[in-house]
Amino acid sequence: MDHDTTARATLIRSASEAGSRVFATILTRSPISRIDIARQTGLSQAAVTKAVSPLVAAGLVDAPPATQRDGNPGRPAAPVSIVPDAMMMLGIKVNVDEVIGVATDLATTVLAAENRPLTVHDPATVATAIIEVVRALEERLGAKADAIAGIGVSVSGDVDTSTGIVRESAIMGWSGEDFGGRMLALLGRPVTLENDVHALTVGEHWFGVGLGTESFAIVTIGRGIGSGLHLNGQVVTGAYGVSGEIGHLPLADPARICSCGRRGCVEAVASTAAIEATVSCALGRDVGIDEAVRLAHSGDPAAEAAFREAAGLIGTAIATLVNLAGPELVIIGGEGVSNFDLFEKTLRDAFDAHAFGAAARCRIVTRPHTFQDWARGAAAAAIQSLVR
Amino acid sequence: MDHDTTARATLIRSASEAGSRVFATILTRSPISRIDIARQTGLSQAAVTKAVSPLVAAGLVDAPPATQRDGNPGRPAAPVSIVPDAMMMLGIKVNVDEVIGVATDLATTVLAAENRPLTVHDPATVATAIIEVVRALEERLGAKADAIAGIGVSVSGDVDTSTGIVRESAIMGWSGEDFGGRMLALLGRPVTLENDVHALTVGEHWFGVGLGTESFAIVTIGRGIGSGLHLNGQVVTGAYGVSGEIGHLPLADPARICSCGRRGCVEAVASTAAIEATVSCALGRDVGIDEAVRLAHSGDPAAEAAFREAAGLIGTAIATLVNLAGPELVIIGGEGVSNFDLFEKTLRDAFDAHAFGAAARCRIVTRPHTFQDWARGAAAAAIQSLVR
Ligand SMILES: [Zn+2]
Ligand SMILES: [Zn+2]
Repeated sequence: MDHDTTARATLIRSASEAGSRVFATILTRSPISRIDIARQTGLSQAAVTKAVSPLVAAGLVDAPPATQRDGNPGRPAAPVSIVPDAMMMLGIKVNVDEVIGVATDLATTVLAAENRPLTVHDPATVATAIIEVVRALEERLGAKADAIAGIGVSVSGDVDTSTGIVRESAIMGWSGEDFGGRMLALLGRPVTLENDVHALTVGEHWFGVGLGTESFAIVTIGRGIGSGLHLNGQVVTGAYGVSGEIGHLPLADPARICSCGRRGCVEAVASTAAIEATVSCALGRDVGIDEAVRLAHSGDPAAEAAFREAAGLIGTAIATLVNLAGPELVIIGGEGVSNFDLFEKTLRDAFDAHAFGAAARCRIVTRPHTFQDWARGAAAAAIQSLVR
Repeated sequence: MDHDTTARATLIRSASEAGSRVFATILTRSPISRIDIARQTGLSQAAVTKAVSPLVAAGLVDAPPATQRDGNPGRPAAPVSIVPDAMMMLGIKVNVDEVIGVATDLATTVLAAENRPLTVHDPATVATAIIEVVRALEERLGAKADAIAGIGVSVSGDVDTSTGIVRESAIMGWSGEDFGGRMLALLGRPVTLENDVHALTVGEHWFGVGLGTESFAIVTIGRGIGSGLHLNGQVVTGAYGVSGEIGHLPLADPARICSCGRRGCVEAVASTAAIEATVSCALGRDVGIDEAVRLAHSGDPAAEAAFREAAGLIGTAIATLVNLAGPELVIIGGEGVSNFDLFEKTLRDAFDAHAFGAAARCRIVTRPHTFQDWARGAAAAAIQSLVR
């Protein structure tokens, strides 16, 4: 980190709550006038002006120069903007078979992307692959790499962001793994470790469909089934770091054992692995997800039934989430979305059957997130961890 | 409403967002210093002082008088307090067989309580009973009745607070009932209509176990099974007015039909009526809840099994809520709590079996809310509706 970046990061980290709120508002709504910042944050205009001024001095925020016509650069109606180049961020998404990383600026615009395949996923191998991605991104950034202010790493599972410990990741096969500590030792600087769906939710709120929506949920389907909740304008992180575990709601037959060891979890029926297992069992041979999709599309009854069962359970799980949290919008993402035609009708029917009263008005949309979107979410989570 | 009360209500309603936030903070944390208000709200001390001053002038907030030792009544470390008598509130809880009302001051201290039995629960009869309770409470308040600034009415079901319409109340047998409009016509002034569990959640946050807890849930068991969520310091109301419908999560056998018409709802197995039906069916005669409790306590296998089934499903439903929302604390209330010994072990076992990762650390406590507590929650909801 160069001197400017260090000073900027320190300024953000040590800001008052009012200062943090002002900076977060400019980050997500830039360009925005001081009047609108005051409206959004509930602060007085004087407090906003006081909070904006050190951000401008540090080069994080741009205030328009004085013009002939109006001589006052601090006038409240003039918009201020984030300076995208003031800081760079790296966001890394760890998948079972791949590490994907992006370098973004402070506006989470992607400047470069890199990935490395993973064949094994023990923590040491994954850490090495992440370091390779980080080094490659630094090279791609060139001189701008000095402005990297943080690295966000997102991984599926029960992640304790405050300690950097991955408490449980069924997909990676990790348990009580101090991955944050490992990265710090290897990289010489801290990373922000975050549950992948929480990171994507932060990203959706900052640069996606969730922008401007007070309450929404992301539900991801595919290898893992997860969700992120954004209610009353904030991500729900869980008092103990766990929330949105829609894949482990006990909605299925208790006879179905989940990879997490519990009975009747949604994932035990509706994850990619569960669909593969159901079709394989019915056909008496190993069937992978691509073949299962082809079979279902060509009308194979066993494959069709497996997708229908999965879709019904996911729709029921979404109704469960909606009956409890009442979001305005549910965004379905995850790699399973690429075959959403196999899910849609049954999923919506199950949702309609179980959504309660006016909660049923919640819109359900799909969004085919790329892995770069997930990595971008990790970068957004790293920026957010600075702001908090 | 006398002149002072009208002026105070207008001041609160027309406050800026900063002003509202300051008043809400004083309401719930009184006495509190301006420094601590600034800390809580993220406002500057200047903004807090500016917001406090009209509240003091209107007699809503008390600032300590200047003393010999320190001559400055506006000094930021001196605590300011709510003036409890500045406004009176009425809170009404509508049950199937009873209307319970309390008169409270601005600190939601109960000054008087009244109730009227209900034998039928068509909207007109219920409205008449409420009016009787209101008149009796006004009489009990005497001269203070002029300071009544609002009436909160809480009822089980899908209630649209913004329009005053009860969209669906299975327990009352109401559907699309403009109860707010009816009360306005009869009473000549508006009432705040709120879902009963949401109102209780507001109350718990203001004067109960939830005070000082950023994230908690209330789960009520008994005739109805409901919940209220308080996350990131705010009640989750639902984008369409519905949330916390834990009684209608599809966790039970789809063969069980709920009174709401849906299949497999928690209430279809675990409500008082469902327990009565199960025991009655097993014993081949009509068994009410009191007898069912006695039978279970005396070791009758059918009654024990009915409570065990209900308890297991409630525990599973709480795990579902906790896996999604990750609260710090779950408070179990409702009239079913009086027989919690019949639920506890099975409920906790089911919770432990399905709670995911660190979310399982969530504490589960019971609180035997009286009907007065529920009515007090309705009064708190009425105060809150003024502040918003
Ligand atoms: Zn599971
Ligand atoms: Zn139901």
